Amino acid sequence: MSQRIPVGVLGATGRVGETLLHRVANHPWFELTEVGASEQSAGKRVGDLLDTNSLPTEVADLTLRRLDESWESPLLLSALPSGVARDVEADLAGRGHLIVSNASAYRADPGVPLIIPEVNPDHLALLEGQRERWSGGIVTNPNCVVAGVALALAPLHRSFGLTRVAVTTYQAISGAGRPGPAAFDLVDNVLPFIAGEEPKIAAEPRKILGGVTGSSATPAAFPVDATAVRVAVLDGHLTAVSIECEDRPSVEAVTHAFRSFRGEVAELNLPTSPSEPIVVLEQDDRPQPRLDRDRGDGMTVSVGRIREGEAFHISFLALSHNLVRGAAGAALLNAELCRARGLVGDA
Amino acid sequence: MSQRIPVGVLGATGRVGETLLHRVANHPWFELTEVGASEQSAGKRVGDLLDTNSLPTEVADLTLRRLDESWESPLLLSALPSGVARDVEADLAGRGHLIVSNASAYRADPGVPLIIPEVNPDHLALLEGQRERWSGGIVTNPNCVVAGVALALAPLHRSFGLTRVAVTTYQAISGAGRPGPAAFDLVDNVLPFIAGEEPKIAAEPRKILGGVTGSSATPAAFPVDATAVRVAVLDGHLTAVSIECEDRPSVEAVTHAFRSFRGEVAELNLPTSPSEPIVVLEQDDRPQPRLDRDRGDGMTVSVGRIREGEAFHISFLALSHNLVRGAAGAALLNAELCRARGLVGDA
Amino acid sequence: MSQRIPVGVLGATGRVGETLLHRVANHPWFELTEVGASEQSAGKRVGDLLDTNSLPTEVADLTLRRLDESWESPLLLSALPSGVARDVEADLAGRGHLIVSNASAYRADPGVPLIIPEVNPDHLALLEGQRERWSGGIVTNPNCVVAGVALALAPLHRSFGLTRVAVTTYQAISGAGRPGPAAFDLVDNVLPFIAGEEPKIAAEPRKILGGVTGSSATPAAFPVDATAVRVAVLDGHLTAVSIECEDRPSVEAVTHAFRSFRGEVAELNLPTSPSEPIVVLEQDDRPQPRLDRDRGDGMTVSVGRIREGEAFHISFLALSHNLVRGAAGAALLNAELCRARGLVGDA
Amino acid sequence: MSQRIPVGVLGATGRVGETLLHRVANHPWFELTEVGASEQSAGKRVGDLLDTNSLPTEVADLTLRRLDESWESPLLLSALPSGVARDVEADLAGRGHLIVSNASAYRADPGVPLIIPEVNPDHLALLEGQRERWSGGIVTNPNCVVAGVALALAPLHRSFGLTRVAVTTYQAISGAGRPGPAAFDLVDNVLPFIAGEEPKIAAEPRKILGGVTGSSATPAAFPVDATAVRVAVLDGHLTAVSIECEDRPSVEAVTHAFRSFRGEVAELNLPTSPSEPIVVLEQDDRPQPRLDRDRGDGMTVSVGRIREGEAFHISFLALSHNLVRGAAGAALLNAELCRARGLVGDA
Repeated sequence: MSQRIPVGVLGATGRVGETLLHRVANHPWFELTEVGASEQSAGKRVGDLLDTNSLPTEVADLTLRRLDESWESPLLLSALPSGVARDVEADLAGRGHLIVSNASAYRADPGVPLIIPEVNPDHLALLEGQRERWSGGIVTNPNCVVAGVALALAPLHRSFGLTRVAVTTYQAISGAGRPGPAAFDLVDNVLPFIAGEEPKIAAEPRKILGGVTGSSATPAAFPVDATAVRVAVLDGHLTAVSIECEDRPSVEAVTHAFRSFRGEVAELNLPTSPSEPIVVLEQDDRPQPRLDRDRGDGMTVSVGRIREGEAFHISFLALSHNLVRGAAGAALLNAELCRARGLVGDA
Repeated sequence: MSQRIPVGVLGATGRVGETLLHRVANHPWFELTEVGASEQSAGKRVGDLLDTNSLPTEVADLTLRRLDESWESPLLLSALPSGVARDVEADLAGRGHLIVSNASAYRADPGVPLIIPEVNPDHLALLEGQRERWSGGIVTNPNCVVAGVALALAPLHRSFGLTRVAVTTYQAISGAGRPGPAAFDLVDNVLPFIAGEEPKIAAEPRKILGGVTGSSATPAAFPVDATAVRVAVLDGHLTAVSIECEDRPSVEAVTHAFRSFRGEVAELNLPTSPSEPIVVLEQDDRPQPRLDRDRGDGMTVSVGRIREGEAFHISFLALSHNLVRGAAGAALLNAELCRARGLVGDA
Repeated sequence: MSQRIPVGVLGATGRVGETLLHRVANHPWFELTEVGASEQSAGKRVGDLLDTNSLPTEVADLTLRRLDESWESPLLLSALPSGVARDVEADLAGRGHLIVSNASAYRADPGVPLIIPEVNPDHLALLEGQRERWSGGIVTNPNCVVAGVALALAPLHRSFGLTRVAVTTYQAISGAGRPGPAAFDLVDNVLPFIAGEEPKIAAEPRKILGGVTGSSATPAAFPVDATAVRVAVLDGHLTAVSIECEDRPSVEAVTHAFRSFRGEVAELNLPTSPSEPIVVLEQDDRPQPRLDRDRGDGMTVSVGRIREGEAFHISFLALSHNLVRGAAGAALLNAELCRARGLVGDA
Repeated sequence: MSQRIPVGVLGATGRVGETLLHRVANHPWFELTEVGASEQSAGKRVGDLLDTNSLPTEVADLTLRRLDESWESPLLLSALPSGVARDVEADLAGRGHLIVSNASAYRADPGVPLIIPEVNPDHLALLEGQRERWSGGIVTNPNCVVAGVALALAPLHRSFGLTRVAVTTYQAISGAGRPGPAAFDLVDNVLPFIAGEEPKIAAEPRKILGGVTGSSATPAAFPVDATAVRVAVLDGHLTAVSIECEDRPSVEAVTHAFRSFRGEVAELNLPTSPSEPIVVLEQDDRPQPRLDRDRGDGMTVSVGRIREGEAFHISFLALSHNLVRGAAGAALLNAELCRARGLVGDA
């Protein structure tokens, strides 16, 4: 890249926004120049709201802008809550910005690409059709569970043709935002309900692993059932995944499919891209959230306990860092893909 | 019952054994007269090994016997580790005792009944065939996860004919015995492997919900897949269960099947039997281990979040107390059933 | 008591209020007839706001009243937040009610008794002087840490004359009310600050162990330093207490002082009074919050690890249930004392 | 340093030993050439016993030696359990090695220096007197709590003259070694006893802050009382410290003393030495174990909540990483000091 292009971060003070600030600061391609937050926070310094122990001074010194102000940066990374995102993102896309969003507001919109760069970068073609709606555009990344699950399913769907999927989760606290669940509810307990989560886990993998027809995404056909549960873990969503395929694959074939997966865009060397998108762990008792969530700087999905079953063909565990691969890192990787593809800045 | 009959407890100092001591003390039908433990503990007082805050003095004062001594009680409740149980239980059954065991050693033996009184009390008929092996007999109860899952599946199998089942668990620490997992491994973490657990969860429900042909149990046909994970909860195993049936049932039909289930032996009024074997909770975020594990004095299975899916017909959550419904209470209820059926003592 | 007298509970939906509802329901001396809460909750049924699994139906069916309505009950138990309590309690005391309050608003007022019935029931004499301010009156109980610490210090002050005290706490989550600290802040962590707590721990024991001169409490002279820390425990405040005395007492003398302490009002047989206000545990590793908090139905203080030191004469650990001995049980015991002393109802 | 000198690590497979391996690998002054462990582990590869995700291959490939073998390295770092350390360390010191030990075996020996390089490097003079006992020598570092507490007390003792100290701890699980406390004992609980800990906390700061007379350490005079409690934190010991001084210092004076402390050996630029040995945090609720333990790569002590009291002059909180500043980093820093002082290798 010839020079760094300016980017703004919307929703900078939540957990995902904060993670974005850390990762955009010192980014080789992007320069963090604008940050926005809700009306209550607007006008304050970033450093007055976040623990600045590890934030660079120039980021801590940025003043939070209102979301409805005019923004300079052609590229805006959105970590907004979904309720706010619907209007704000459309408004800013209408004003010519490319919005790369972690919010769920437009993920299910057939005209908005839902992208994992290693899996379906071709879905960026949907931006063409957005021209009728907005002078800019919106690109989204998946839900924090789906980010890891869909990445793990990708090589299996390509190799064996998924016909049925079940996902049960052990989700970390940080996925619930601030302040998140009360300590009183998670000591000696798990919380077996996460509002709005299961329908996303059921729908988003199908869109990601599906195709694009004209200006619409066309989801893959396999049904997905999900059970989402919160556990007393800080970061890292563990998932138990079971699959049925057109042909029953062996454990060896599945392991090989995981291990040989390099992703669609390896040749682009995107800065946030891990050297291995998926790692297969051989120990009986891995992946574990605390031990494996930071693999690949939080961008690698750790897979383990691949085994054959009777109700399904194959079951396995997959773990990914919900704030990185599942949110901030996912958005940033999408932004990098957009720049590498010349959709923003001087690629 | 005309008078209390003497019982012994084998493996009295483990977590399950200790729970048994509390429940057999003051039992209306049984009198705790003998307790046994491993060679290292033999000769010591119960009160020297266990926290005696709530144990009756007469129990605390019992001296632990060696397992290979001769025992007086016709009925022996076994909370032995499985490795030890295989030889000890056969030896004592051969000497004429009725062993009601929580150990897994004989659960898979086609000639040994694996019983949940509310579900398959008729499997006691297998004791007939045991006469060729032992002058006494062995009756087992299921694994701590299966105890709750198979009970919940029973009315569904009867009503709708199960064709496929998947179980994913959130298992409590106490299920791992003493000392159990290290704190270092469960703070900010879950442990996604429990040795030997998944095959039991796959096999035992089929035996319980199957039939008896002559002197052999004949398992039901539906396949079961299981994923077993340990979480930072003291007591209470939560399970996410998904089922496919011969005919797709509605949420209402499943709810009704749960609610109308009374169990096979309600008319016996067994002392440990809960008034409701299964309770359906309506709140979105229940059952929760800490809030619901003690329902029905630990013997009721709490069910919730019944919902239709696409990969399966129905998914739901089930919770039961692993030390009570899943172990000590299960064995005790089996012992009560045996007595009520005249298999031991003067019924 | 000839018959149950009606009582109202102010602030019924917080953690302390809820505990009060459970304990006043079925109380031998009191009948729960009125409940009040903040404006947002007023008009709703108790059963719509609290988990009613164990609340009697007649309590669940009570409708929450506004705090500024007129109340029938001569005796009102207050579990209000302190900010609200200042005005509401004065207003209701001015209208003739006897307020027995857990709130901190009037604890430091020299004209308001701060009472632990086993320790300083004579401080009720301060109610005399309140006649100039209110036609009713206000009686308070201590802070949730102080309730246990001051009770433990009482026999030591009487026997040895305290000259210096240091208290360091391990406080439970439930003491922070609803929702309390976020799970994210207490997993793999402790929170070394509790707003407003340390000054209360420093001041209240001196008032309780001091005297009454005319219409004013006169605090004891010994200085108290406190450090208050929140830990990942549900209920039960553990405290490390160190004391210096006029004469250095031996471990045996301190143990004897604890064990022989029966409290000032044992002869009244107050219903909430435990048979032993203080229990000394001999095991090296006790008291522990989870194992010992429920002793004496939550009203007994468990003491352990009594040992001599060099910087202080004696150090020990004390544990008490923060919602019971430290709040709801404390207020209820004070209400019982008031009734037994004829200050309300037909004693 | 002209070139790296070879070092061996004794007790390489415990938590402290493992931390040492990570820190000695790639050390600028030392080359890890030998590792030793108990008889059961001897003969195995390091990589077969430890999680090797982050260990360099050349360390993972080292074979564990028996402790009684002959060792090549002049400098041996000991992370042995204290029971083993007494004989092994004396034996190896007798064979000419310089033992830099984290074990407690010789800490209280008046002829063995107990050193924090920033505080009492002059105590190395005691090695002179060791010549009569061993041809090599033994240097120790303090207990994991004392490492942080004595460092924090050092500038206060120098500036104000300590006359009385009290320490109450919130200690992390990793301090208990492998496997450490059971999860069942630390969920919803704290463990108020750590065998052997309190006497060390009482004695070691006095030796460190005392002097050396001839061949004996002469402890400082101030008495120290300690209460040691284990909490559900992975790493990082938090301590509540209270002090009385010859003259009552102000909060400002204490803060200044902490902030201006640079340590005795700053000019040596020891590789493991943090740029700031002590950092004062200004937020009300800091230091917190999870947020502050890694400051200064685990070697900085974080201090906060400095405040005046009545029973003591000043109270404050201090936090340090128990495996780094409290163990492996402490030993390594001592080894660096020894090399810089020419006590081993070609300084």
